[in-house]
Amino acid sequence: MLRLPRLVPRLRGLRYSSSIPRFPCVEAHATRESRIASSFSSSSGPEPPYARPNPASYTVFNSTTPLRLTYHSSFLPTFDIAYETWGTLSPARDNVILLHTGLSASSHAASTPVNPTEGWWEKFIGPGKPLDTNNFFVICTNVLGGCYGSTGPSSIDPDTGVPYATHFPILSIFDMVRAQFQLLDHLGVDKLYASVGSSMGAMQSLAAGWLHPERVGKIVSISGTARSTPSSVAMRYAQRSVLMADPNWNNGFYYDTVPPHTGMKLARQIATITYRSGPEWDARFGRQMRPLPTDTAPSPTVPRLPALCPDFLIETYLDHQGEQFCLKYDANSLIYISKAMDLFDMTRPALQALRLPEAAILGPEDAVDLARPHPTSHSKSHPPPTNPPPHLTALAQGLVPLAHTPTLVLGVQSDILFTVEQQREVVDALRMAGNDRVVYYELGGVWGHDTFLLDVLNVGGAIRGFLS
Amino acid sequence: MLRLPRLVPRLRGLRYSSSIPRFPCVEAHATRESRIASSFSSSSGPEPPYARPNPASYTVFNSTTPLRLTYHSSFLPTFDIAYETWGTLSPARDNVILLHTGLSASSHAASTPVNPTEGWWEKFIGPGKPLDTNNFFVICTNVLGGCYGSTGPSSIDPDTGVPYATHFPILSIFDMVRAQFQLLDHLGVDKLYASVGSSMGAMQSLAAGWLHPERVGKIVSISGTARSTPSSVAMRYAQRSVLMADPNWNNGFYYDTVPPHTGMKLARQIATITYRSGPEWDARFGRQMRPLPTDTAPSPTVPRLPALCPDFLIETYLDHQGEQFCLKYDANSLIYISKAMDLFDMTRPALQALRLPEAAILGPEDAVDLARPHPTSHSKSHPPPTNPPPHLTALAQGLVPLAHTPTLVLGVQSDILFTVEQQREVVDALRMAGNDRVVYYELGGVWGHDTFLLDVLNVGGAIRGFLS
Repeated sequence: MLRLPRLVPRLRGLRYSSSIPRFPCVEAHATRESRIASSFSSSSGPEPPYARPNPASYTVFNSTTPLRLTYHSSFLPTFDIAYETWGTLSPARDNVILLHTGLSASSHAASTPVNPTEGWWEKFIGPGKPLDTNNFFVICTNVLGGCYGSTGPSSIDPDTGVPYATHFPILSIFDMVRAQFQLLDHLGVDKLYASVGSSMGAMQSLAAGWLHPERVGKIVSISGTARSTPSSVAMRYAQRSVLMADPNWNNGFYYDTVPPHTGMKLARQIATITYRSGPEWDARFGRQMRPLPTDTAPSPTVPRLPALCPDFLIETYLDHQGEQFCLKYDANSLIYISKAMDLFDMTRPALQALRLPEAAILGPEDAVDLARPHPTSHSKSHPPPTNPPPHLTALAQGLVPLAHTPTLVLGVQSDILFTVEQQREVVDALRMAGNDRVVYYELGGVWGHDTFLLDVLNVGGAIRGFLS
Repeated sequence: MLRLPRLVPRLRGLRYSSSIPRFPCVEAHATRESRIASSFSSSSGPEPPYARPNPASYTVFNSTTPLRLTYHSSFLPTFDIAYETWGTLSPARDNVILLHTGLSASSHAASTPVNPTEGWWEKFIGPGKPLDTNNFFVICTNVLGGCYGSTGPSSIDPDTGVPYATHFPILSIFDMVRAQFQLLDHLGVDKLYASVGSSMGAMQSLAAGWLHPERVGKIVSISGTARSTPSSVAMRYAQRSVLMADPNWNNGFYYDTVPPHTGMKLARQIATITYRSGPEWDARFGRQMRPLPTDTAPSPTVPRLPALCPDFLIETYLDHQGEQFCLKYDANSLIYISKAMDLFDMTRPALQALRLPEAAILGPEDAVDLARPHPTSHSKSHPPPTNPPPHLTALAQGLVPLAHTPTLVLGVQSDILFTVEQQREVVDALRMAGNDRVVYYELGGVWGHDTFLLDVLNVGGAIRGFLS
């Protein structure tokens, strides 16, 4: 599958390379294409694992109650939500924690008897762990729009018998949460002890409390936001752009053929940059280069010849992250869910523009008394702003339904995707809205946005303290 | 050129879209492809402007003195350097400022009689301006490896009669500066009054003073670095990856056909994110959406339907920046020059690994007396570190040749590509190396890395003060 240059220069006395240049990092795309194409004719079925779901490892709730959609006048008549649980539901059904995932995670947050592989939050869930299954019944769902058992663009549209692809409706974070609450209804859970989430899951966690203030006891929002910023939209747009430019994407209709694996790899490389931080890479990789094959050691007089493909360990790391991800996740799910994140905005005018029935709770604008004395509990280390900018006031007005819900907000100073400024914005807005039970922590450290996956001591400790 | 989906689903009662989805942001690539392809057969010649250079607007120095190359045992036997000048060379030839460019700029830093269009630093160069042409003779070159008149991958290899493409040698920042000094020799300029540069130009500015301490009077380094960090390598690698994955890139051999315009557009979108800052976008775009065509106003009951293509102004801005750039610059030049930036590292071990003849000036390691008292001038607001990390000591040891050159370092707190930490590192290393004439400024503001192009008051003022 090596592509040969269309134009082969006449080779006369080339001084810097004696042969046609080769680029292994580019050839890898063609090699992968060939391998995937051949998998379609093999007995083991096509390669993308999401095309071979394993329903034995999770439970599927099939809803036949039509789901209201934020951006469409019509409803989703039926849908599936894949979920897993840990712990035991109390007789009073009052010990439920609903755990929301980040963009690309499955419901497999921790190992289970039917799926003993490690979950994405393995160290946070279990007996004696921050989400303590001795006390709590934890439910984690694959998000609506995802590709790990819940209905999404790769699901079969019952009306056509083929995958929705880009006929799938545009989703909002609120739609995802509504689907989760249909599951809670099905399970007979009237009230959550807590709604917990990180990254996009933090958006869902806030949205859950907003849609159903009476059904959510506590909210945990880790490295999230209540209003996506242009910077984060830009970083997600760059990912969608490279993905949609892959000819294999084919306007979203690729389910009977080879998916846009190259676009997915490139998108994941960009995403990985936003998930980690510079200081971590300084310490972990520095300027180290990949080892050379032993037969290509540099001469004593000429330094190692750099390549246009990866040389530095940071480059091979990004390459590896992209390669690992590019067939694990459905491209259209990535596009739809990342778009939903961009659209998330809990300022009052934005919520009203969505014409959500729940927005009636906001009442007339002047009913929100932001002028009364700010609550002071928990805020000595981060007092409310004395002169809030207009968007912060608008956010406080939008968050009024959360005024009475104890909320933990946690941010990480090295996070470039969901910055601490955004965490402080959520905290300020909640306090301005009258919530005097907001706990706020900022973490240092070098892990950036991914801290929520890594720092069980600090992140886990904050959750444990807040939930107890 | 509209690509039709390979798989057209049976259209039965689709609820969310009544027709085959269309994606204008994806179709734009095919439309551009078609337009460029047709330009090859038109009388006006192919579209990429760099394929139609205008030698009347700049001067070309053709060197026949072979150029030593850092990463190759052979030399570049001949090469061109395009340059422009402003002001008048003094009889003593002692008023020369060599201005180095960022990655993609031409020699056209300011308007000239033969090219009256505005230059990329128009407000900084001229009578009474920061680079005051009443006093100084300013020379700006297109960088070696570029595509605006200087020899680069798109130039004809005299040995083959076709463009070098990826047979072009890997370049270092030092190679670029050596080519500039051949131009200075040709012009009879023995000593520069100052070497001035921003971004990659700041790397060249430091490299010039390092290669020729006796020929450089002062150094200005704005938003640069003396040692590229893994974060900046990651951001440039992401750009090269999307570019090289464009099938049109064709291993670099595209000069007789349509260039990788889609990859260039996507790469520029990523670059644009690194050039500006979040706070600027908060103020400039916020969460504003692009205006809808008047015939697609949302209904009173359903909100505006978002698109998978750009909705937010920040997205249309990135799209526009990419579209404007994608045919203005040569893809291989971008790859080679961005790689040279990654490779730049002035720590002592890295310099020694390059086996540069000039590295002899570094002498034995223990000759560098970093232990003597730190100089104190200009450092009250930023004292030297008391316990420097190993890489900083290594950088100080590498920068010893700059110990006696007055140097202005200027950084911007909102710069995410060349962070202020990197500026402080250069300052600390220079002072540890014994340089007591280092001036250091940090600017606030919201423009990020692009501040050097925009903030004539503060950036220009610092340069003016330092040069006078």
